[in-house]
Amino acid sequence: MKVDGKDMRTIWLESDGISVGIIDQTVLPHRFATLSLKTLDEAAHAIKSMQVRGAPLIGATAAYGVWLAMRANASDENLERACKALAATRPTAINLHWAIEEMLAAVRNRPRAERAAVALKRANEIAEDDIAINRAIGAHGLRLIEAVAAKKQNGERVNVLTHCNAGWLATVDWGTATAPIYMAHDKGVAVHVFADETRPRNQGASLTAWELGQHGVPHTVIPDNTGGHLMQHGMVDLVIVGTDRVTAQGDVCNKIGTYLKALAAADNKVPFYVALPSPTIDFSVSDGVAEIPIEQRGPEEVTTMTGKTKDGRIETVQVVPDGSPVANYGFDVTPARLVTGLITQRGVIAPNRAALAAVFPERVRITS
Amino acid sequence: MKVDGKDMRTIWLESDGISVGIIDQTVLPHRFATLSLKTLDEAAHAIKSMQVRGAPLIGATAAYGVWLAMRANASDENLERACKALAATRPTAINLHWAIEEMLAAVRNRPRAERAAVALKRANEIAEDDIAINRAIGAHGLRLIEAVAAKKQNGERVNVLTHCNAGWLATVDWGTATAPIYMAHDKGVAVHVFADETRPRNQGASLTAWELGQHGVPHTVIPDNTGGHLMQHGMVDLVIVGTDRVTAQGDVCNKIGTYLKALAAADNKVPFYVALPSPTIDFSVSDGVAEIPIEQRGPEEVTTMTGKTKDGRIETVQVVPDGSPVANYGFDVTPARLVTGLITQRGVIAPNRAALAAVFPERVRITS
Repeated sequence: MKVDGKDMRTIWLESDGISVGIIDQTVLPHRFATLSLKTLDEAAHAIKSMQVRGAPLIGATAAYGVWLAMRANASDENLERACKALAATRPTAINLHWAIEEMLAAVRNRPRAERAAVALKRANEIAEDDIAINRAIGAHGLRLIEAVAAKKQNGERVNVLTHCNAGWLATVDWGTATAPIYMAHDKGVAVHVFADETRPRNQGASLTAWELGQHGVPHTVIPDNTGGHLMQHGMVDLVIVGTDRVTAQGDVCNKIGTYLKALAAADNKVPFYVALPSPTIDFSVSDGVAEIPIEQRGPEEVTTMTGKTKDGRIETVQVVPDGSPVANYGFDVTPARLVTGLITQRGVIAPNRAALAAVFPERVRITS
Repeated sequence: MKVDGKDMRTIWLESDGISVGIIDQTVLPHRFATLSLKTLDEAAHAIKSMQVRGAPLIGATAAYGVWLAMRANASDENLERACKALAATRPTAINLHWAIEEMLAAVRNRPRAERAAVALKRANEIAEDDIAINRAIGAHGLRLIEAVAAKKQNGERVNVLTHCNAGWLATVDWGTATAPIYMAHDKGVAVHVFADETRPRNQGASLTAWELGQHGVPHTVIPDNTGGHLMQHGMVDLVIVGTDRVTAQGDVCNKIGTYLKALAAADNKVPFYVALPSPTIDFSVSDGVAEIPIEQRGPEEVTTMTGKTKDGRIETVQVVPDGSPVANYGFDVTPARLVTGLITQRGVIAPNRAALAAVFPERVRITS
C-alpha cells in the first residue's frame, strides 16, 4: 500500500541480491526506517523483537530467514539449526511453523549447491502467495462493506472497528482485516475505521492508524475500553479483525482483547468477522480456549509506553508504580459462537468444522 | 488508608483552619504531593483537572468548595455563582450535584454571617458520612470475599478484578470497590487484585495499583484487554467495580470499559458486583444506555501518556501518529442484566427498581 504517496511492501529482496529489506515496525509511527537482513540471526531477531510482526509477515520473514541460512551454509545441520531457531522466536504463530515446513519440504531433498536458490524461489513464492491471498480476502470482504454502504443514506460512512494490526504491515501487502477496507476506500466507498489502540504494544494506535493515514483512509483511534460503548450506540456497522490461529471448530486466537470486542458485538448484534489466510487454520486444535497455549510476554510492555516527546525525541516512560507486578498475555481466544463469519481467500464461510473442512480440505490433511 | 506506613485521607481541613488539603492525584504514582485549596476557583480547578476524582471525593471537594466561597463572600449571588461553577466541572458526576444541593439546603436560608460556619460543618459531615458509608460497604462486601475464601484450598488467594479506581483515593477513605478488599486484607484473608490499567487516563495502573501497594495488598496490573482471558481461565473469582451513577432500574454508569468486563464476567459466570454509596443512585434516569449523556474528554488523554523516564523525570509522550484523530468517551453504561449485585451501605441488593426503591426510599424522593 502507499507510504508517503509511494507503493511499498513490508518485505522485499534487496537490489544487492543477498539481503532482505524490511520496515522496522518498532519505530513506527514516529519514524519510518527500513532494515536489511543479511543473516539467519538477523531474521530471527527481527521476528523475536517484532521489527516484523503479524502472522503472514512472520511466515514470509522466516522463509527468507531459511534462505539467508542456506546462503551462509547449506548443510543439513545448518538447515535444522535455522528451522529450530526460527521456530523458537514466537511460539503461538502457526504461520511461522507452516512457512518453516514449506521451506524444509522445498530444500531438504535438494543437493547443497542448489539449496540457496531453491530456498529463495520458495520464499518469493510464499510472499507472492500471501499477496494473492490477501487480494482475494479483500475482494470477498469488500462485498460485506458494500452491502452495508448500500443501506446508508446521504453518503453516511460505513464504520468498521478493528483491533490490533491485521493491516498490510502484518502481511506482505494489503493486510487481512484491512484488505476489504483498502479495496472499499480505493473504489470510492465511504469507509471509516475505529482503530483500537491495543495495549500493551499499541499496534492499533502506532501501526493501523499509521498505515490507514498514509493510505488516506479516514479513521479514529480509540482506547481499547471504548468499542463496547460505540456498539451500544450504533456507531459500529461491523467488526473485522485478523487472527493468529483458527481452530478446527472455528475458535479464533488473536491479540489479547479481541474476545471482549466479540462479546460486545454479539451483545449489540454487530456482525463480527475474522479475516484470515488459510495457513492460519489449524485442524490439530479444536477447543481454542482449552487447548491453545497463550504466550506470556515481558513485563516492560505493560509497565512502559514509548512515544514522541514535544521536542521530537523518542522516549520510554514507566506508567505503573515502582514495585507493582504486571501480567502480559499476548493473545486470547474468541469462541466460534461469537464469530459471524470467516473472510477467507475462498469466500466468507461459517466458523465451524464442516465449513472449514469443506473449503480447505488441504488444511485438514496438513494439520490434523 | 496507609501511605508510606501512615494513615491518611484524601481531603482534610488544614491546620490553618482556612484551607482544604488534598492529595494531587495527577502526579501519582511517581510523586506524592499534597495541595492546599484556598478559594472556590482552586476547588473547581481541582475537580476539573482531576487533581481530585472519583464520585464521592468530587462531592466532598465541591462541598468544601462552597465553604471556601462562603468564607470569601457569603452573598446570595456568590452562593449561586459557586454552585454553578462547581456543577459545571464534571457534567456526568451525580454525587457532585447531590453535594451541591446538600450545601445549598444547609446554607441558603441562613444569615450571611453564619453561612461560612454552617458550610464548613456540613462539608465535614459529608466527608464523615462518606467514610461511614464506605465502611458499611466494606463490611457487606467482605462477606462476599470471605464466602469465596471459604471454598479455597491450601491458602489459595481470592482473585478480585477491578476497573479504574474506585479506591480510597476516589473517596474520603476506604474506597467503594476497594473497601471489601482492604477489610479482607486487614482481617488476614488472602486476597489478590487484578487492576485494569484503565486507559486513557490509567487510573488503575497509576492510582489503584499505587494505593494497594502502599497498603500492602497483593495485586497485578493488567492491560484493559486482559480481563476476558483471565475469566475464561478461571483466574478471577469476582469482579468489583465502582460507579458514577446507578439508574432506577440498576444500570451502572462507570469508567469506559466497565461494560466489556461485565460482558466477560457474564459469559464466564464470574460474579460482577458494583460497590456504591447511595448518593450515586439516580431515580430520575431509568434506561442508562439510552438516557445518560456520556462526557467526551480532550483528545490529549488518548494521544499521550505520562510517566517516569529512566532518569526519574516525568515526561509526556505522544503515542498516536501525527494527524490521526481520536475519540475519548469517559464512561459507558453496564445494563443491569449483567450485574450480579449492588454492594451498598445497607447490604448487597439486586440491581432492579424494586430493590433499589425498597432499600433507598429517600433516593426515590430526592431524585425522581
